[in-house]
Amino acid sequence: MLHAVIMAGGSGTRFWPASRRNRPKQFLTLATDTPLLRMTFERLGGLVPPERVWVVTTAATADASRDILPELPAGNVLAEPVGRNTAACAGFAAHAILSQDPDAICIVLPADHVIGQEERFRSAMAAGAQLVEREGGLLTFGVQPTKPETGYGYLEVGQEHSRDGEWAVHHLQRFVEKPDLERARRYLESTRFLWNAGIFAWRAVDLLDEIGRQLPELAEGLCRLAEAIRSSNADAVVAEVYPTLPATSVDFGVMEGAQKCWTVPVDFPWSDVGSWSALAEEIPGDSSGNHRCGRVHATDSRGNVLVSTGPALSVAGVNDLVVVATPDAVLVVPKDEAQRVKEIVEALRDKGWDDVL
Amino acid sequence: MLHAVIMAGGSGTRFWPASRRNRPKQFLTLATDTPLLRMTFERLGGLVPPERVWVVTTAATADASRDILPELPAGNVLAEPVGRNTAACAGFAAHAILSQDPDAICIVLPADHVIGQEERFRSAMAAGAQLVEREGGLLTFGVQPTKPETGYGYLEVGQEHSRDGEWAVHHLQRFVEKPDLERARRYLESTRFLWNAGIFAWRAVDLLDEIGRQLPELAEGLCRLAEAIRSSNADAVVAEVYPTLPATSVDFGVMEGAQKCWTVPVDFPWSDVGSWSALAEEIPGDSSGNHRCGRVHATDSRGNVLVSTGPALSVAGVNDLVVVATPDAVLVVPKDEAQRVKEIVEALRDKGWDDVL
Repeated sequence: MLHAVIMAGGSGTRFWPASRRNRPKQFLTLATDTPLLRMTFERLGGLVPPERVWVVTTAATADASRDILPELPAGNVLAEPVGRNTAACAGFAAHAILSQDPDAICIVLPADHVIGQEERFRSAMAAGAQLVEREGGLLTFGVQPTKPETGYGYLEVGQEHSRDGEWAVHHLQRFVEKPDLERARRYLESTRFLWNAGIFAWRAVDLLDEIGRQLPELAEGLCRLAEAIRSSNADAVVAEVYPTLPATSVDFGVMEGAQKCWTVPVDFPWSDVGSWSALAEEIPGDSSGNHRCGRVHATDSRGNVLVSTGPALSVAGVNDLVVVATPDAVLVVPKDEAQRVKEIVEALRDKGWDDVL
Repeated sequence: MLHAVIMAGGSGTRFWPASRRNRPKQFLTLATDTPLLRMTFERLGGLVPPERVWVVTTAATADASRDILPELPAGNVLAEPVGRNTAACAGFAAHAILSQDPDAICIVLPADHVIGQEERFRSAMAAGAQLVEREGGLLTFGVQPTKPETGYGYLEVGQEHSRDGEWAVHHLQRFVEKPDLERARRYLESTRFLWNAGIFAWRAVDLLDEIGRQLPELAEGLCRLAEAIRSSNADAVVAEVYPTLPATSVDFGVMEGAQKCWTVPVDFPWSDVGSWSALAEEIPGDSSGNHRCGRVHATDSRGNVLVSTGPALSVAGVNDLVVVATPDAVLVVPKDEAQRVKEIVEALRDKGWDDVL
């Protein structure tokens, strides 16, 4: 049967100070009324019933995840004591799902993306799931680029393998790391390069087979988790074993070396909303090109991202800034340096300002 | 006897969001550990005993003023139901003081200035008080300019009248409104122009005589207050009469047309700290020229005024901004447009954001 695994282990630094360790991005309602995690769940409606939706999250946010998704059986929320990247996360979920359903097909997807045209999204997911059910292998969905984006990894598609309605299935040629602007422009002109959306499909057993073949140390750790998963001391085993798992990504760590790899090109609107400046694209600008969220007043100011989670935020005479106001922390940074938030968070950690991280 | 009248009726808009209607500038501890009102009181120590220090404040801040100055008799804190500028304020205080001391000499001074060299300050005040006790007339202290400041009004000094130790008493030629930069530069080169510090000395009766001669409507209203001042329904009379008083300043409304006007040039360090950018001069800059107050982190940022009354304020890659963070309101404005705060406060009032004003 078809299952969905929502990867919700984000560390919450890129949207600081709105996001915190205990309230990462997927819990925020910045561009939307609904938290991204909840939107991700609802987007699966009709495709995967709640009892087959799984969430892998951090220990700190497991309860909040259950609160936000009360439809899920409590056991479907798996807590990682520490983040060990996506290969461990997907493998952990695969074992948990296999313990209930040995024939499980999994769609694996991040909790914190913004996706439009949800019918098309579900149709593409269904096509991908049917392909891996029929032919095995590991599949990743690739989004048709709409701009020369240097913030995303790319996929290079290979030969077309088959078609399922409007969806083509291609062999996956390779994963490409984030390009510079010149390469990103070439990728945009080419038809062979797609954005790596980090959305996958596979049979749970196929993923674990590939992990076993390529990453024996990870496989062994995951097996120890699998044995404990339904036992009374599952929590203790997870707490002990999980931190020892090798941290590697599904894309470069498992799929790149896998024996059978597919990609389905998709064209629904998609963003990983990876920074305050990326968020701006999800919030319509006002007549001065300011992207506002929350209680904000702006005079003679242009092109700013102005976000408040409560305080009355007022700006005058400033341009192209990101200003984020929360009751206990405030950020000001130029819009084109929004990625510096991570660096700021590290500096605050060094300062011991843990109460606002 | 010598009395001091501290005018503490500020509306608290120029230091928004740190200042509010109910917590105007004189209650803030921005450049200092002690609120400006308390510093103003302590600066009078040795010159005027607490039982002869009077505070005129707003109804909203009368209790807070008493809390900050517990040495004062409760009746020495006079509350204006609404602000009616300095002539009404000084006249109201003069009547209250005369009801206890018919020979009262008053030093009248704002609650929210920063003044250095306090011994010299007290020495100048004493010299001014002795002059008006001896010769009558209205006296204003003028500060020797140290830069071409366009944010202050100026005094033009006339002929020297007398000397008292190191202090010269001059006739006051005229008050000058805030000049443009070119004129301010000429004033700085000349020796005839002084900053109008808004610090005055007079016999209480002389002030009221001049008000009676020049502003009969104000005089009449003040008399109604004086009659009620020791009665049981004083509060009701003040609430009824005060809003009807004409609002005019002591300088232009009373002194400019007065029969005898003096000024004493002084050279102690003085600032009215009239804006966030003026405050910066009272806070030593760090190695990047950032003036910080409170919990502030700055990376690759220069020449900013960064103030937090609680939240962790973090900036990166920004220059020459004023950023003020409080738990419920945040301000961002270029340093050279700091005067726009008043305009912002008006806009927020129009929006009905009264909870943060």
